[in-house]
Amino acid sequence: MMNHGVELQRRSTVGDRMDDLVRVFGERSQEADVILVNGGLGPTSDDLSAEAMAKAAGVPLVEDQEWRMHLEAWFARRGRVLPQSNLKQCLVPEGAIIVDNPSGSAPGFRLKLHRAWLFFTPGVPAEFKQMVNEQFLPFLRETFALDQSLKLHKLLTFGHGESTLADRIAQVPVPPGITLGYRPSVPIVEIKVFARGAAALAALDAFVATLRSTLGDAVVSERCASIAEEVHLLLREHGKTLALAESCTGGMLASQLVEFAGSSDYLVHGAVTYSNAAKARLLGVATDTLIAHGAVSPETALAMARGARALLDSDFALAITGVAGPDGGTEEKPVGTVVLALADRATCWTQTVRIPLRSRGVVRQMSCAIALDMLRRRLLDAEPLVSYSFIPATHTHVEHGH
Amino acid sequence: MMNHGVELQRRSTVGDRMDDLVRVFGERSQEADVILVNGGLGPTSDDLSAEAMAKAAGVPLVEDQEWRMHLEAWFARRGRVLPQSNLKQCLVPEGAIIVDNPSGSAPGFRLKLHRAWLFFTPGVPAEFKQMVNEQFLPFLRETFALDQSLKLHKLLTFGHGESTLADRIAQVPVPPGITLGYRPSVPIVEIKVFARGAAALAALDAFVATLRSTLGDAVVSERCASIAEEVHLLLREHGKTLALAESCTGGMLASQLVEFAGSSDYLVHGAVTYSNAAKARLLGVATDTLIAHGAVSPETALAMARGARALLDSDFALAITGVAGPDGGTEEKPVGTVVLALADRATCWTQTVRIPLRSRGVVRQMSCAIALDMLRRRLLDAEPLVSYSFIPATHTHVEHGH
Repeated sequence: MMNHGVELQRRSTVGDRMDDLVRVFGERSQEADVILVNGGLGPTSDDLSAEAMAKAAGVPLVEDQEWRMHLEAWFARRGRVLPQSNLKQCLVPEGAIIVDNPSGSAPGFRLKLHRAWLFFTPGVPAEFKQMVNEQFLPFLRETFALDQSLKLHKLLTFGHGESTLADRIAQVPVPPGITLGYRPSVPIVEIKVFARGAAALAALDAFVATLRSTLGDAVVSERCASIAEEVHLLLREHGKTLALAESCTGGMLASQLVEFAGSSDYLVHGAVTYSNAAKARLLGVATDTLIAHGAVSPETALAMARGARALLDSDFALAITGVAGPDGGTEEKPVGTVVLALADRATCWTQTVRIPLRSRGVVRQMSCAIALDMLRRRLLDAEPLVSYSFIPATHTHVEHGH
Repeated sequence: MMNHGVELQRRSTVGDRMDDLVRVFGERSQEADVILVNGGLGPTSDDLSAEAMAKAAGVPLVEDQEWRMHLEAWFARRGRVLPQSNLKQCLVPEGAIIVDNPSGSAPGFRLKLHRAWLFFTPGVPAEFKQMVNEQFLPFLRETFALDQSLKLHKLLTFGHGESTLADRIAQVPVPPGITLGYRPSVPIVEIKVFARGAAALAALDAFVATLRSTLGDAVVSERCASIAEEVHLLLREHGKTLALAESCTGGMLASQLVEFAGSSDYLVHGAVTYSNAAKARLLGVATDTLIAHGAVSPETALAMARGARALLDSDFALAITGVAGPDGGTEEKPVGTVVLALADRATCWTQTVRIPLRSRGVVRQMSCAIALDMLRRRLLDAEPLVSYSFIPATHTHVEHGH
């Protein structure tokens, strides 16, 4: 919202209980200029937003004839009769202005109470997003003199904790009107730079440049919301192909890349090889290697990466093998021990890390991020092996030739 | 919370701005008995919860000596010096009672303001969860006379929209004190049955039994939060093994199962075969089949499932191939066309569905759920192919023998 000239003041989540809903509409409409309401417009008995708003405003619910016709046509196009339960979706508070919902059965609507415009949107994420972009933001621009001097810039960091980042940044003088926010969300920490006012706006670019050089290696993207997306863009920009061999992450890395349209350009295959039999059969890892060094070892990770790469002769392969927990750890290889390997046609880099035990999900998320970061750095012609302050590698290895 | 005798009244999310935080603490503490505060206890400049609470209560911040010693020891154990920025985590409002955080650097604390106990917890999900279970819930039980007549039962449904479910349920009389809630969250719709009061509690089991038989096929679990978890449990209970072949879902199905500890018991391998080359090389799909019928066809899905199953001779294999979009659709096979196959040692079931175009993520999520539901039904000795009201199959096929 900030880059649209609006600051979010508060978000309130209320259960499907009439009294609580009526109260929150009444209360918040005395504090805010605009309230974006999401959800509670569905066809079922627990969808109470329209009725609660009518009560808060002291007006009756009325049927919107146009929306009823629209809804009947909408179902007819899908070869279905309008279900009884959808009829209530045509009821809106008297005086409300209907807002079209091109993708769903619930109409949006807006009306004013106290100082606020309340703007009602359906809970279905795709419908909500479309309505915000196509109707809510234009409505804001038409109705309010929006603050053009608000701006938010984000730097995505990886490999260092919040306090380490804060200590590094502490030496950088922050210009007036600029504030910093930290949003840690495994596996990354997002640094948000807020600029408020003309002077802050003018100083923003130079300040971000200073931050960037202060943070150095820690910054992994300033254009994406994830390392996976950054790697996705780099692979497409560089026209390179990738194969994956995943043990403990079990398809999570593949899935993170396939989320983005166009991943078929570079992802030639992925192998989820949980068992030793699968590592041998799908990736050609020698049984001797598995027996001598174990499934979680630099030797096995290297063989997995090389085997995965060779299978369809891709430019790169990433391999991950580790102990995700909660069981399966040993004294030598406790839960959280993960070996990562990156192979290109000439070289294979491996590193062993010990992810501080939190949960199976965290170990898998961190493993994917480290592997992706190795490839990201290789694509930028940087050294793939780098020291992360909160997950130092216990072992690294670079092997040239085959 | 409900099954612990507590009803959540409201959740408020506030940005890292001092005025808004002070206001929300002051305001909500006049309304609620208990406020669980999460986040804002970190080491960085935008972590304001302790200071805001001190202002709201009109008391100074004081350093907690015991927590400082604890923190110094915590960092020393990790071979690190206490960073300057972590010192502020020892500051709590005067009069606050420290709540131990066994896993992190921020202490929890609680204190009373107006009618409410405010209970502060760190934002790190694992630390939050542990503190809620080990300290917050016992505190609630000791401090309040909790309502023992609150209960929540959930039925997980799949394959039918909210309005279809509501229309089916409309015929069932709901006993006094029982209310229903619907939580649609792609790919499933969760039906929540709330019971409040002794009479409702007594009527709950019989009412749920009626719901269960009314909903029939639509109910996929009453013990899990996802179809993947239900299938995970069934595979382990039945001692069966599974192989996966994923095209458009790209590892998402494997990753959903690997999320659960113990998945290595049954998941013998997964193959992410995006390209035709990968389908041929990894799964042995005949090039003739790919050329004659295309990558998204019942013939290819069947060959993928059989190839994946045969690779390590597992009991079952699931295969998914489809057009996830936003590009790649044709008139004959528009975006959202997905073919799913389930193979066991004797039989292969395939079905083609057309998922209403929403987003790439939705198409992939729905595809995984349909595939998992086929296997779930097979594990329960039910017919794997079933008609979903909102995603009818356009083509189904059952082939016996090899």
